[in-house]
Amino acid sequence: MRGLVYHGKGDIRCEQVPDPTLETADGAIVRVVKTAICGSDLHLYHGDLPVPSGFTMGHEFVGEVTETGSGVSGFRTGDRVIVSGVIGCGACARCRAGQVIRCERHETRVFGMSPELHGGQAEAVAVPGADHAMTRIPDGVSDEQAVLLTDILPTGYYGARRAEIEPGDTVVVIGAGPVGIQALLCAQLFGPARIFQVDRVPERLALVEKLGAIPLHADQADEALVEATDGQGADTVIEAVGSDATIHKALVYARSGGTVSVVGVNTSPALPFPMGLALMKNLTFRTGLVPVQELWPNLVPLVASGRLTPEIVFNHHVGLSDGAEAYRRFNDREDGILKVLLDPLA
Amino acid sequence: MRGLVYHGKGDIRCEQVPDPTLETADGAIVRVVKTAICGSDLHLYHGDLPVPSGFTMGHEFVGEVTETGSGVSGFRTGDRVIVSGVIGCGACARCRAGQVIRCERHETRVFGMSPELHGGQAEAVAVPGADHAMTRIPDGVSDEQAVLLTDILPTGYYGARRAEIEPGDTVVVIGAGPVGIQALLCAQLFGPARIFQVDRVPERLALVEKLGAIPLHADQADEALVEATDGQGADTVIEAVGSDATIHKALVYARSGGTVSVVGVNTSPALPFPMGLALMKNLTFRTGLVPVQELWPNLVPLVASGRLTPEIVFNHHVGLSDGAEAYRRFNDREDGILKVLLDPLA
Amino acid sequence: MRGLVYHGKGDIRCEQVPDPTLETADGAIVRVVKTAICGSDLHLYHGDLPVPSGFTMGHEFVGEVTETGSGVSGFRTGDRVIVSGVIGCGACARCRAGQVIRCERHETRVFGMSPELHGGQAEAVAVPGADHAMTRIPDGVSDEQAVLLTDILPTGYYGARRAEIEPGDTVVVIGAGPVGIQALLCAQLFGPARIFQVDRVPERLALVEKLGAIPLHADQADEALVEATDGQGADTVIEAVGSDATIHKALVYARSGGTVSVVGVNTSPALPFPMGLALMKNLTFRTGLVPVQELWPNLVPLVASGRLTPEIVFNHHVGLSDGAEAYRRFNDREDGILKVLLDPLA
Amino acid sequence: MRGLVYHGKGDIRCEQVPDPTLETADGAIVRVVKTAICGSDLHLYHGDLPVPSGFTMGHEFVGEVTETGSGVSGFRTGDRVIVSGVIGCGACARCRAGQVIRCERHETRVFGMSPELHGGQAEAVAVPGADHAMTRIPDGVSDEQAVLLTDILPTGYYGARRAEIEPGDTVVVIGAGPVGIQALLCAQLFGPARIFQVDRVPERLALVEKLGAIPLHADQADEALVEATDGQGADTVIEAVGSDATIHKALVYARSGGTVSVVGVNTSPALPFPMGLALMKNLTFRTGLVPVQELWPNLVPLVASGRLTPEIVFNHHVGLSDGAEAYRRFNDREDGILKVLLDPLA
Repeated sequence: MRGLVYHGKGDIRCEQVPDPTLETADGAIVRVVKTAICGSDLHLYHGDLPVPSGFTMGHEFVGEVTETGSGVSGFRTGDRVIVSGVIGCGACARCRAGQVIRCERHETRVFGMSPELHGGQAEAVAVPGADHAMTRIPDGVSDEQAVLLTDILPTGYYGARRAEIEPGDTVVVIGAGPVGIQALLCAQLFGPARIFQVDRVPERLALVEKLGAIPLHADQADEALVEATDGQGADTVIEAVGSDATIHKALVYARSGGTVSVVGVNTSPALPFPMGLALMKNLTFRTGLVPVQELWPNLVPLVASGRLTPEIVFNHHVGLSDGAEAYRRFNDREDGILKVLLDPLA
Repeated sequence: MRGLVYHGKGDIRCEQVPDPTLETADGAIVRVVKTAICGSDLHLYHGDLPVPSGFTMGHEFVGEVTETGSGVSGFRTGDRVIVSGVIGCGACARCRAGQVIRCERHETRVFGMSPELHGGQAEAVAVPGADHAMTRIPDGVSDEQAVLLTDILPTGYYGARRAEIEPGDTVVVIGAGPVGIQALLCAQLFGPARIFQVDRVPERLALVEKLGAIPLHADQADEALVEATDGQGADTVIEAVGSDATIHKALVYARSGGTVSVVGVNTSPALPFPMGLALMKNLTFRTGLVPVQELWPNLVPLVASGRLTPEIVFNHHVGLSDGAEAYRRFNDREDGILKVLLDPLA
Repeated sequence: MRGLVYHGKGDIRCEQVPDPTLETADGAIVRVVKTAICGSDLHLYHGDLPVPSGFTMGHEFVGEVTETGSGVSGFRTGDRVIVSGVIGCGACARCRAGQVIRCERHETRVFGMSPELHGGQAEAVAVPGADHAMTRIPDGVSDEQAVLLTDILPTGYYGARRAEIEPGDTVVVIGAGPVGIQALLCAQLFGPARIFQVDRVPERLALVEKLGAIPLHADQADEALVEATDGQGADTVIEAVGSDATIHKALVYARSGGTVSVVGVNTSPALPFPMGLALMKNLTFRTGLVPVQELWPNLVPLVASGRLTPEIVFNHHVGLSDGAEAYRRFNDREDGILKVLLDPLA
Repeated sequence: MRGLVYHGKGDIRCEQVPDPTLETADGAIVRVVKTAICGSDLHLYHGDLPVPSGFTMGHEFVGEVTETGSGVSGFRTGDRVIVSGVIGCGACARCRAGQVIRCERHETRVFGMSPELHGGQAEAVAVPGADHAMTRIPDGVSDEQAVLLTDILPTGYYGARRAEIEPGDTVVVIGAGPVGIQALLCAQLFGPARIFQVDRVPERLALVEKLGAIPLHADQADEALVEATDGQGADTVIEAVGSDATIHKALVYARSGGTVSVVGVNTSPALPFPMGLALMKNLTFRTGLVPVQELWPNLVPLVASGRLTPEIVFNHHVGLSDGAEAYRRFNDREDGILKVLLDPLA
């Protein structure tokens, strides 16, 4: 079969790879129907992860079960499934607490990033621990929507939920990239009166305005928020960029007693944190990695009923054979590409 | 000035009444701009409340401050204000806990129902305890919308909030009258995947469908809900009718571990409550009277930002001079009247 | 082996019964070390349940694993275990939501009550679905304490947790029987300032006073609570009797905005519920059956660390051979028996 | 009258000062009965605050009302009162949200720190905004206990409450100084199974052990906590020191999904915050200044009923005339002084 394969920094190729095989009784083989490129795939593209040449990429994918191990009880051949990008044992204390990425029985396992776990930007993929890693796609959810349920829609929801939004609140979302847009859609689930969204890219600001946010260019945001909140600050801030500077802004934008929920990825060992500010404003500050599986019971029905339309972020659809070029253009932010959907059969 | 005055069962007249006067330093006089007839006004219309002949009716009204007592610090002449239908001292333990109707310093005080408190279906009204009883109408909120913030929008919101809806939930609202419709709009603030709404009146079912609910005729609801939830029941049920039978249905419709929030008014001393059912399903059951003032910080910004459009319920606009006739038709449910808006100047 | 066997109303005998055998791969055999008689066992004693003559009684027991099926992954021979009285599949939506008693895959299964599930008042017992039904007894927890973790300590905790006690609150517990005492111990975990406990039996009132409650004889409770709370009522009430009259009292004792949590078993199809009272006081009312397994992560560490001492309720220790007599005396409330601990080997 | 007066860095004197006078209608004069020295008073002692020479110190004090302004409605002469160290208007959005220190109508007002507000280490003190700043001392609460309700008991409680402790949890408190000890007592209100407390001073560790904590010397804490929690970390950590190093430890000690609540005062503009750690563990991090008044309804009943005994921290009682010497010894940590109680009349 074909897959998008890593051959070193900036060198991605669509080429023939071995068909996946069942290696454990708890696994399944999934024929991939749709897959997407995620911002975090760019770490690999940049050569920042220790994976071998010849490794298949991708952790956002959905498809159809073609084979199941003898220990799989929840799925059978023919099921349409969403697969979580991060998988664990599903039974240890951390998995049950949503900390799948820190599963006690397995090292971190992320498709297309952990060297032993080939990704899903391919025609098929082997999924270990299938009962815990997957959920069925119900009627009313398209493949395109389902791909977003593997990672960035849950990420946006996690950020919004942990922001503790109350009906009538004023919310700020920093960043209008793919995750920021999902955060916007999810913040709207909690009944705020106003959501301000901050970015620098005019097309993104135009898109979030269409989706119901009040767009703010980053250069004008400080002043605009002071004025819009009578100097009080926002009830809650969702940070979806991950830079030191935007996290600092998030703390500045929050009102006294407010909450800052960071979903942008920042792994600094020593981010400069304004404790005096947080102290005087009694802030709550959160960050973390999304517990994808735990959030499906909330999110799948919302997509199925039409309340959430996460697919709005896809503005570039190509076949797997054009995947390498798509990576390059996505990385270079060419043509305003926001999110790339790949068709494994094209 | 003119007011709608009670003269006995079924006998309401628009006639001249004395202008209101300031009686305490903490009071204000409000020139009424819009007022509405509430379902609970019909208790008076039916002669069920011990008020004297000549009493002015109405607890849903908004207007403009024309005079303030020396002890009023938060308002001045010219302010557009919403007035809560129920008022208290604002300082005792119960008022602070939202139980204004059981204020420790005053007997229950409801405009147009408590004999000492003339109502607001008039050209003007005296408001005691103005600092606690009122809030300013911000730009972006029309008089028509503001009238609904005096009672039924907060009531619907209170019911929805206490239903503990989670994103992705399935909700049932029983009743599609004025309060049931507000409950629908407010339930949508909490991100449910689906809201089923049960009633018997085709026009009401058509309206709530337009507003986003899945309409169910009461005769088909039992079966339809079993099917729609795979026999599990709804995550949460809001009851907005108040009959013994519909409260029983609410308990039947809820799933295991679910919540039933009753905003329909039922004052039975001995409602037949299915304890075995509640026991086997680990239910939470709530009822209560809305703490109007406490909910304004949530609701006023939502109306101001256009997220809530409660005025959809008004389908009958008349002048005060036609108020008596409007009472009769509202009571008889003529012409599908849902909610009556009265203009004091016409 | 020997077991306590039902032979009809009031006819319990300690006699030889067949040794239990593994019937499914997910089961385990447990040698019983300690077992207790529960108030709900009296339903069987009274002949109120449709079980066959020759059926072994008891759902409160702990012991040591002597055999496990091939599908059991969490336990092995020699493990000391607590077994939940109620068991399910552990995987369906209801089991995961704590509604084990309404498991979607199995009819209700309670040891010593469901006809197909012989009880644990015996030398050994077969436990289906062992991975979900059991938890290991850690060091620091005695067998006597562990028996209470099978049912009544979790029941008391469930009642206390759902009472939503805040630090500084005034709590009322109605009933000072075995469950009421566990509810007292658990209510103390939530930091109330005062717990009043109501009963009619002087010895029970004396015991709860020693445990930290303020004892109130039922005949004096109404007046005493009005005085102690300045007429406001208690912040929260836990009902641990289950009669219509005491549930009514619970609603009367609660303050405005308070919560009533019923753990007393009342299965009335039509309990007379004072809706007017609940409406005027904005009450929250809850009842339900304890999700035992779900509460172990909270409770087991508390017993292990010495923070909870549930064994205080055992005031009658006998061997299995005296079990029939113990049932009779427990049923007749002879000698102030509160809770009976049975030793299967004596 | 006499007061403890600031005359420059390290120069405190007990000397005659003018009697306080009522300056606004909303104020009261309080005759001080007991007052205490707080760790934050040492900022002034060190000359770090811009107050004039001749300024009276102290923000922890209780006493008896001797005079009230005409606008004070909740107190009268003879009332025993607790006074919050931080005062505001009580009516603005921030005051109502507990952010009294950032009152919108007044600059920050802390007794004995804000230059215009003479402190309470004196025979009497003027209290502006008395209705909001004070609460009555009920029977059953001693003066000595009441002093702790002005600041450090609420501070400890605020830290414990925001730590989101669940029954059965493992808690770590870093620091066993006066605030750390209050945090321990308050953490116990939430039902944890174990509380580990970390410090370096043997006497303090001995004291917290007596109070129920498991004492850990800071040098052994890292290893001991790993072992005690099987490498998972504590469910929740309360930081009561405020150094960069101990805040970092707090984040290290917390388990995945845990909470870190900082009550130690750290005003760094750029504390080095381990984002990668917080990200991988999905942590919640909080800091802030205590909303004293807001917590009295929880805490006063707990002290009155004997559930909280905060006075355990006082191990040094002297008269006001020895106050200067007490400051010196408290600052130098001589003789294991933990907390100093001053008697204004001696």
